[in-house]
Amino acid sequence: MMQPPARIGMPLAEIDTPALLIELDAFERNLARLAAAVAGRARVRAHAKTHKCPEIARRQLAAGAVGVCCQKVSEAEAMVEGGIGDVLVSNEIVGEAKIARLAALAARARVGVCVDDAANLCAIGASGAKLDVYVEIDVGAKRCGVPPGAPAAALARELAAFPNLRFAGLQAYQGAAQHLRSLGERRAAIAQAAAAVRATKAALQAEGIACGVVTGGGSGSFAFEIESGAFDEIQPGSYVFMDADYARNEWAAPLPRFEHALFVLATVMSRPVAGRAVLDAGLKASSVDSGLPLVWQRPGLACTRVSDEHAVLELAAGAQLPALGEKLLLVPGHCDPTVNLYEHYVCVRRGVVEAIWPITARGAVY
Amino acid sequence: MMQPPARIGMPLAEIDTPALLIELDAFERNLARLAAAVAGRARVRAHAKTHKCPEIARRQLAAGAVGVCCQKVSEAEAMVEGGIGDVLVSNEIVGEAKIARLAALAARARVGVCVDDAANLCAIGASGAKLDVYVEIDVGAKRCGVPPGAPAAALARELAAFPNLRFAGLQAYQGAAQHLRSLGERRAAIAQAAAAVRATKAALQAEGIACGVVTGGGSGSFAFEIESGAFDEIQPGSYVFMDADYARNEWAAPLPRFEHALFVLATVMSRPVAGRAVLDAGLKASSVDSGLPLVWQRPGLACTRVSDEHAVLELAAGAQLPALGEKLLLVPGHCDPTVNLYEHYVCVRRGVVEAIWPITARGAVY
Repeated sequence: MMQPPARIGMPLAEIDTPALLIELDAFERNLARLAAAVAGRARVRAHAKTHKCPEIARRQLAAGAVGVCCQKVSEAEAMVEGGIGDVLVSNEIVGEAKIARLAALAARARVGVCVDDAANLCAIGASGAKLDVYVEIDVGAKRCGVPPGAPAAALARELAAFPNLRFAGLQAYQGAAQHLRSLGERRAAIAQAAAAVRATKAALQAEGIACGVVTGGGSGSFAFEIESGAFDEIQPGSYVFMDADYARNEWAAPLPRFEHALFVLATVMSRPVAGRAVLDAGLKASSVDSGLPLVWQRPGLACTRVSDEHAVLELAAGAQLPALGEKLLLVPGHCDPTVNLYEHYVCVRRGVVEAIWPITARGAVY
Repeated sequence: MMQPPARIGMPLAEIDTPALLIELDAFERNLARLAAAVAGRARVRAHAKTHKCPEIARRQLAAGAVGVCCQKVSEAEAMVEGGIGDVLVSNEIVGEAKIARLAALAARARVGVCVDDAANLCAIGASGAKLDVYVEIDVGAKRCGVPPGAPAAALARELAAFPNLRFAGLQAYQGAAQHLRSLGERRAAIAQAAAAVRATKAALQAEGIACGVVTGGGSGSFAFEIESGAFDEIQPGSYVFMDADYARNEWAAPLPRFEHALFVLATVMSRPVAGRAVLDAGLKASSVDSGLPLVWQRPGLACTRVSDEHAVLELAAGAQLPALGEKLLLVPGHCDPTVNLYEHYVCVRRGVVEAIWPITARGAVY
């Protein structure tokens, strides 16, 4: 258990580094931006895999979300422990031990889970737990989920054998669409996803099964899911933080432009030669799976290499090298795995620490 | 704080997933292999940034290491807390708060630190702490470190102003050499590093300064540092685990071939269509900065994509798809940042859990 790198009331310059910062004004504007863009046209079930923090989940509920999504039972446990009463595990849960934990959790909160396999559905049904079950359909991401249409309806029909399970609807998340760069590509991918949803609704109707809630859509596409009319609920996560990779997307109406609200504060720990500075934040401080971190509001300074514990900054001609000991803000390439490296958010407003929020689901991978 | 995903005595099949496993037989052979390859020709100061675990550090000391390296003060604190009495922070430590923590630690154990800047040296000296100080020279990695030769000697000379500081030697780690694929490239890079060390020794001698210990060298190159005669001490870390990226190197004498001893155990959570299976271990379970994880001892199965919580496996023609719920072992692409995702090692011997070792320096980035 690491100590927090800051105390409430501390100025930015005194925070120990690397530290994971939330810029509260930007964060709050992102919450409001999502609510304004949705404008009550769909339910919002915010994805907690991004932030892993009940403090943030509570603020998403206050901004209108009906509950949260999680990807793991352990993540859902941390949310329920943190006071969140409605959690959808937007993922398949396989194996006796995990299903037993899911069943125990369902006695404490409203819990949903996804299925894409009949044997797994039987195992979940046999647990006796009262659960909302969503049939996951593959709407183009080629990951989990049964094919749309008849296979999904067949799985939904098998649910009737388990009185403890309620067929709650369809999980239809197009993860592969979120980072398609142009708005046109994302619109086209979600049009295909919506067609897959409609085909599945028709197959359910043909079986006489009420479809329930269709849920899906992420920060990069949710407005298209809403406009399609095929979805009832959206699952955005990254919108609260807006990472460097999402910022490379084209952002325009109907999607609002979210602001960077998550930063890694780092210190210049070496300035060994002209034109090079080294920060104390590497791979273990900022996940690089979706690209290197960006240096925030320091024109001419770019992070060109990272190693486990270092980020090397190169200087453009005419730009000023930061001083040894100076603290810089980095925008992480990918917010979700970066958050998973830290135990605390240092929440800052106008340069002063206002709160420390524990990331209670950090490491909740099982 | 996550619960461990296993209990002592549990068979492999019952361990919850994803879990970080050490195969103890392979791990112990790696410890012995390093000792045999070094054969007393150099001091071994094992790098604890790889494992972040005092249990492992103790076994490295038992196998002959004189102490450990760390990259961060918080990592060093975890090692001293775990009973390790000799720690070199093989990195620059900049900033008042960090230096105060380093000074406090130096009262509890033998602690070394690196410098590459005169102002930073003054700040460390002013702390009054009794510290071993190593001047870091850049021997080709183009990261931290003063240029070899006269600049290093000038910095060593300034140490004399601080009676609490002892000039302990040179930090000369060629990090950029470790993953050069051919043995010939690594040999050539370390020959250059050794020449830089010799030039610095000559500059120190010209100033009448005793050089102390020259320390450097990693798992991919240490035999060349030893053979050069310019180094007194090596700092290998990854040799205990041997990740997928290191395995892509050419391994031949004088370097021993280490075995994979670190694995991520994962469960098949979806098998939605013919030829595709999905594991419950993604970016948050196995760092992909140095490539995707490898599927261990399952010919025809390859991990082709990962997302936050999923790894997609594709099947070669004629190969067999694993069953839903089956558990597979993955070899992580890069061991250090993968270890930093977990709170526990599940230590397994012949398929049974023998120990759970806490990763007490997980998240120790500051």
